[in-house]
Amino acid sequence: MLFHVTMDVVIPHDLAAGERVDVLAREKAYSRDLQAQGKWIHLWRVVGRYSNVSVFDVESSDEMHDILWNLPLFEYMTIRVTPLCRHPSALSVR
Amino acid sequence: MLFHVTMDVVIPHDLAAGERVDVLAREKAYSRDLQAQGKWIHLWRVVGRYSNVSVFDVESSDEMHDILWNLPLFEYMTIRVTPLCRHPSALSVR
Amino acid sequence: MLFHVTMDVVIPHDLAAGERVDVLAREKAYSRDLQAQGKWIHLWRVVGRYSNVSVFDVESSDEMHDILWNLPLFEYMTIRVTPLCRHPSALSVR
Amino acid sequence: MLFHVTMDVVIPHDLAAGERVDVLAREKAYSRDLQAQGKWIHLWRVVGRYSNVSVFDVESSDEMHDILWNLPLFEYMTIRVTPLCRHPSALSVR
Amino acid sequence: MLFHVTMDVVIPHDLAAGERVDVLAREKAYSRDLQAQGKWIHLWRVVGRYSNVSVFDVESSDEMHDILWNLPLFEYMTIRVTPLCRHPSALSVR
Amino acid sequence: MLFHVTMDVVIPHDLAAGERVDVLAREKAYSRDLQAQGKWIHLWRVVGRYSNVSVFDVESSDEMHDILWNLPLFEYMTIRVTPLCRHPSALSVR
Amino acid sequence: MLFHVTMDVVIPHDLAAGERVDVLAREKAYSRDLQAQGKWIHLWRVVGRYSNVSVFDVESSDEMHDILWNLPLFEYMTIRVTPLCRHPSALSVR
Amino acid sequence: MLFHVTMDVVIPHDLAAGERVDVLAREKAYSRDLQAQGKWIHLWRVVGRYSNVSVFDVESSDEMHDILWNLPLFEYMTIRVTPLCRHPSALSVR
Amino acid sequence: MLFHVTMDVVIPHDLAAGERVDVLAREKAYSRDLQAQGKWIHLWRVVGRYSNVSVFDVESSDEMHDILWNLPLFEYMTIRVTPLCRHPSALSVR
Amino acid sequence: MLFHVTMDVVIPHDLAAGERVDVLAREKAYSRDLQAQGKWIHLWRVVGRYSNVSVFDVESSDEMHDILWNLPLFEYMTIRVTPLCRHPSALSVR
Repeated sequence: MLFHVTMDVVIPHDLAAGERVDVLAREKAYSRDLQAQGKWIHLWRVVGRYSNVSVFDVESSDEMHDILWNLPLFEYMTIRVTPLCRHPSALSVR
Repeated sequence: MLFHVTMDVVIPHDLAAGERVDVLAREKAYSRDLQAQGKWIHLWRVVGRYSNVSVFDVESSDEMHDILWNLPLFEYMTIRVTPLCRHPSALSVR
Repeated sequence: MLFHVTMDVVIPHDLAAGERVDVLAREKAYSRDLQAQGKWIHLWRVVGRYSNVSVFDVESSDEMHDILWNLPLFEYMTIRVTPLCRHPSALSVR
Repeated sequence: MLFHVTMDVVIPHDLAAGERVDVLAREKAYSRDLQAQGKWIHLWRVVGRYSNVSVFDVESSDEMHDILWNLPLFEYMTIRVTPLCRHPSALSVR
Repeated sequence: MLFHVTMDVVIPHDLAAGERVDVLAREKAYSRDLQAQGKWIHLWRVVGRYSNVSVFDVESSDEMHDILWNLPLFEYMTIRVTPLCRHPSALSVR
Repeated sequence: MLFHVTMDVVIPHDLAAGERVDVLAREKAYSRDLQAQGKWIHLWRVVGRYSNVSVFDVESSDEMHDILWNLPLFEYMTIRVTPLCRHPSALSVR
Repeated sequence: MLFHVTMDVVIPHDLAAGERVDVLAREKAYSRDLQAQGKWIHLWRVVGRYSNVSVFDVESSDEMHDILWNLPLFEYMTIRVTPLCRHPSALSVR
Repeated sequence: MLFHVTMDVVIPHDLAAGERVDVLAREKAYSRDLQAQGKWIHLWRVVGRYSNVSVFDVESSDEMHDILWNLPLFEYMTIRVTPLCRHPSALSVR
Repeated sequence: MLFHVTMDVVIPHDLAAGERVDVLAREKAYSRDLQAQGKWIHLWRVVGRYSNVSVFDVESSDEMHDILWNLPLFEYMTIRVTPLCRHPSALSVR
Repeated sequence: MLFHVTMDVVIPHDLAAGERVDVLAREKAYSRDLQAQGKWIHLWRVVGRYSNVSVFDVESSDEMHDILWNLPLFEYMTIRVTPLCRHPSALSVR
């Protein structure tokens, strides 16, 4: 099942520098692991914004929620989730 | 260059049936041709809506505009275009 | 998989009376059949509006889309789809 | 009487850890008690968000307000309340 | 139970004059009857708009919906319904 | 002259407890006094929100502004003011 | 009493030419008459839009509503009314 | 040249009392001076809000910007600027 | 004086073909003439939309309004006008 | 490739004065350098707001993103990016 997800990130100015470096590193590792598993199949940066557009391929909504809920940056994100399905004109699914 | 494009389609109720069939067929052929050329690299249907989410890989903004402007369904569409670029955590570009 | 769906209906004033009666009857039969199958598990009317709030239990996003795409009233509807999952405090899933 | 309620939760970053654990525990107990009483009849998590969609079955608007006003997380919530009623095509009320 | 209701009216330009006179007359009679019954307890015109703000005192959401659904002008209205309850500082309920 | 006023209240988390108790007490006394004078003729709580819907009967816009500007909770409020007038179908003015 | 009013005008394309000329002439005469009476004290065109910003000085909300309700172009207008009052720093009222 | 300007003011709760008194005094003097010069030709308070509606008569956009940019309260304001011009039905320009 | 103007164009489906060709030709000639005069100094197409972003250099708001009001496509446009002025960091004005 | 970019700036009140002076100086130098390179081809101030409208001429979306991401004021900005292309009626491209 495919989900289209946008994530807008706002990290508070007063977050301690060390904490900031740590959470960003954990976020990068977390996303790279999911990409390697084939769950996080597309990840693009939106030009000019601290935002990304992603597409996930997961087994269920519950799995989609767990992945997003456990993003290290989750509490600093505004997330919009849109379920996708196969388009009748699409030559490929993913 | 990657562009994220959403297209919401509203075809007027009073469009002649024949015209409707024709424009939909031309739209399908048009999109399949661009997919085959590797320009239209992702095309998904949004669940529950006459809308799609697409990603295009083109040479320039001008090319992106020409592709969209010449969509057979263009006049029945609300289109939003978001330029994308490589995400620092992404394992692959496309 | 659970999907929360809102449907706002606006039927054009100039729709022929016969067509109106027919499409409403088909809509009622269609929804009752899906309720009987256990797919359409909740259907409520929003007070004061020609709108409903529904919850569907389906196998996949594709199935969810097909159900909504084939609603007799689909072309007269504005539909919003929100994927749901289990709440950690919920005593029951559905 | 049925009420559809959405609750978006934003807990301030600087809330003391102990206070956070306490208020979340009180919230869980509060909601489970109301579910056990048959007041809070549906509680789902919205995929990817610290939000829920709920349906309550109560005697009056006053009772609905008291229930929401006394949610331990109330001051950290944005709440939208939509009164529901029986849909003419619904096979069941709840 | 009290409901706060706003109604914005847009009557199509091309509605036949006779039909317009008739529906407006039926609307006036309908609302005066409900006011006489004590259901429609407040009805005010919003300055400068074809809109009203109303407060209803009814037994249930179902009754509220039936009253609004059967307004002669219903199909030409955008309606917003807000459930009200007693304010802790209010000297009177209605 | 009638004014329809909505007031959404957000009291900062970090307001000292004593100050909070004081300002709420002054707000209650202030509103009860105006109700007793017949100026604040309707005051309802919006279900599920720290908001009220009110109707005022005052001599002028200036008086309306002074009443609102001097609300003890004014700086914690988002206020919307809508001038009302007599509805042609209304059996009573207030 | 002062009211700030914005009026956005959209005249249907298919309005008969004669009717269009007539309603515009009546609108101009109507507004000039009220300006001459000192009711309509300010009338400006918004650059680039078929909109105006106006200020009225009237005796009551009822009078304000009657003036706007009887604008020849009323049914083609979106109107927003904002009550004004004296600003503590203003050297003059109007 | 006429500009219509709305200014919504939100002064932070934690601004030192002395600073607050000072900036408000400077704001009042600043606006009275511009009114005396005939630049700030209209200044009204919006009923129920810490907002004003103003009209300025200046030589150019640059002058308009300098006036607003140097408002003592500028950093606490949300400002919207709308260029005005003569209305064909207006009996007077200002 | 510089004005930033966006123009979104929606031409009704049922506009006669001849009328459509004529109004588009007049629009093109009109804009080219103003560009040649140095009034319309920038004109860009927004990718994927029947919209443009323009910058005008004119003597006054009145002149700006006349130019826009007399656009052949004016009645089919949604126009937003934003007055610009010199940026303190800008190396050039236009 | 041309990009239209708007930047709304909100610098936190509690930013240390020294830091504020420094970041503004770096921002000015940064933008002047890019203007000198011919990348940042237009930069205007929006009248009455701490905002600018800019147009960039760059080689790719990635380059556009890098330029914006590295703006010294980036974390205090809300940025909207709109890709532009040649308008069929435009006499010049830039």
